[in-house]
Amino acid sequence: MATYDLESFYNGLVSHGLIIPTTVQGAFGRGAVFEDVLEAFNRAVTRISKDDGAEVYTYPPVIDRVVLEKVDYMDSFPHLSGTIHSFFGKDKQAKELSAKIHAGDPWGEYMGMTAVTLNPAACYPVYPHLGARPLPSDGRLVTMTNWVYRHEPSPEPTRMQAFRVREFVRAGTPDTVIDWRDTWLERGYSLLSELGLPARKDVAADPFFGRGGKMLQDGQKAQKLKFEVLVPVISESDPTACCSFNYHVDKFGNLFDIKTPSGETAHTACLGFGLERVTMALFKAHGFVPAEWPASVRAILWPS
Amino acid sequence: MATYDLESFYNGLVSHGLIIPTTVQGAFGRGAVFEDVLEAFNRAVTRISKDDGAEVYTYPPVIDRVVLEKVDYMDSFPHLSGTIHSFFGKDKQAKELSAKIHAGDPWGEYMGMTAVTLNPAACYPVYPHLGARPLPSDGRLVTMTNWVYRHEPSPEPTRMQAFRVREFVRAGTPDTVIDWRDTWLERGYSLLSELGLPARKDVAADPFFGRGGKMLQDGQKAQKLKFEVLVPVISESDPTACCSFNYHVDKFGNLFDIKTPSGETAHTACLGFGLERVTMALFKAHGFVPAEWPASVRAILWPS
Repeated sequence: MATYDLESFYNGLVSHGLIIPTTVQGAFGRGAVFEDVLEAFNRAVTRISKDDGAEVYTYPPVIDRVVLEKVDYMDSFPHLSGTIHSFFGKDKQAKELSAKIHAGDPWGEYMGMTAVTLNPAACYPVYPHLGARPLPSDGRLVTMTNWVYRHEPSPEPTRMQAFRVREFVRAGTPDTVIDWRDTWLERGYSLLSELGLPARKDVAADPFFGRGGKMLQDGQKAQKLKFEVLVPVISESDPTACCSFNYHVDKFGNLFDIKTPSGETAHTACLGFGLERVTMALFKAHGFVPAEWPASVRAILWPS
Repeated sequence: MATYDLESFYNGLVSHGLIIPTTVQGAFGRGAVFEDVLEAFNRAVTRISKDDGAEVYTYPPVIDRVVLEKVDYMDSFPHLSGTIHSFFGKDKQAKELSAKIHAGDPWGEYMGMTAVTLNPAACYPVYPHLGARPLPSDGRLVTMTNWVYRHEPSPEPTRMQAFRVREFVRAGTPDTVIDWRDTWLERGYSLLSELGLPARKDVAADPFFGRGGKMLQDGQKAQKLKFEVLVPVISESDPTACCSFNYHVDKFGNLFDIKTPSGETAHTACLGFGLERVTMALFKAHGFVPAEWPASVRAILWPS
């Protein structure tokens, strides 16, 4: 019977060189073996979906601030956001800034907000792109591996400030999108299960900000807009979301003018694997040495 | 004779699906073919250095703000920095923030500086790690591929806000470090030349901020602390730095307490390939369709 304990799991990741602690929470380095597993899992996702013919993109960790404003991100998750600020002053202000820093005083006031923020969801950059021209009759399917940011420093290794998400986005008619989402919910669950992970599916909700947050969560659950595939990694009672599905109905279609060929507003859905989380779930389930993992698991990750 | 022209090069990258414009400068998406070339070049760097036995790490795009403070980054390059800010308020402030955004008013004042900033140089996260214990007698060699940030929005495709650097860091005695730097300066130049790029080496300087910047640049050049391998991509007279070498003497050794086994302060040097820039240099030199590139170039990038 597996036991779950944050500290011993974290210490095992560190002592095996899988993660390299830094002086700030949730921003550790990844060692070569950790990356090897992460990339192997990402390739396995590519293999099981290769007949779907997704367009492949890579976006940088930063995104136009206007996209976040447009999708009302700051209404729902201001506490998780990461806006990017820089220095716009002249020599005089630069001298003051330098003096503040050398004195150990706060210096945030010298920084001005830039046109970019950190990207909080791997799928966001693609919606403006999907809206640039009408969708083909069978819609569009896009996949990306992007770094995303959440301001939630934590000693929990599975809760990071920066991590990678392997994301798929489907845009098209409601039927197309829901069928695709349901196919992947089964496929994602099967992949994680075949990798020997104690996975289960559940309806889920986002961590909305503030007093109204609970109501928004209840609404999201009632409408079954969000599903997750959960795997216990540091806790059995509070398992880790390793794969997340969001059905946006026509939200992004409306905001970014994504249209079906008949001129109707497209529906969209996305699914993302948290690559570091899946990697950690594998280390938790099978131990810290991939060479010793079950042959069935290794065959999926490193097929000959 | 090659001609250089920003607009036609940018339009070619876009029309071939190599980069995907977004609504903000220097933060475009990368297409599958672009990534294929970038990854092939990165693997070529791994191959030519495999006997060096570098330790391999991956760091996230964010770094402890204290590291930037410690290395005096804000004294030298405040205008390029990207500090990360988030929302620390309660419901009342969140409502005000939301109202500002929906009214189209500035809202930076509602954001507070976090403990992390974007990482402006791929090597920074590794120095605190190198200082954790004395170096072995032959020093240490580390390599990483990290996303870095510079606040310099520009229509030039080679000048990005976020890009990847394949970096090597060498720490040890002065002789060890300088020998290694010189070996790589030749090796980096040869690799780019063998890839059919019109590369040349030059002494270089960093874009220091403000009125004192020119003096700092002159000093850096006089001491030959920085070298670059340059390739014309968008301009012949102002070629693009595709590979950059920095000798830090004992700066990071002192700051992060990196010691040789005999207890002396270690010297450090780093070299980094700007992966997007090398990729763009290849498209400039050989055209927008990798399948049509010279066999000698393809053999290095995609050896059978």
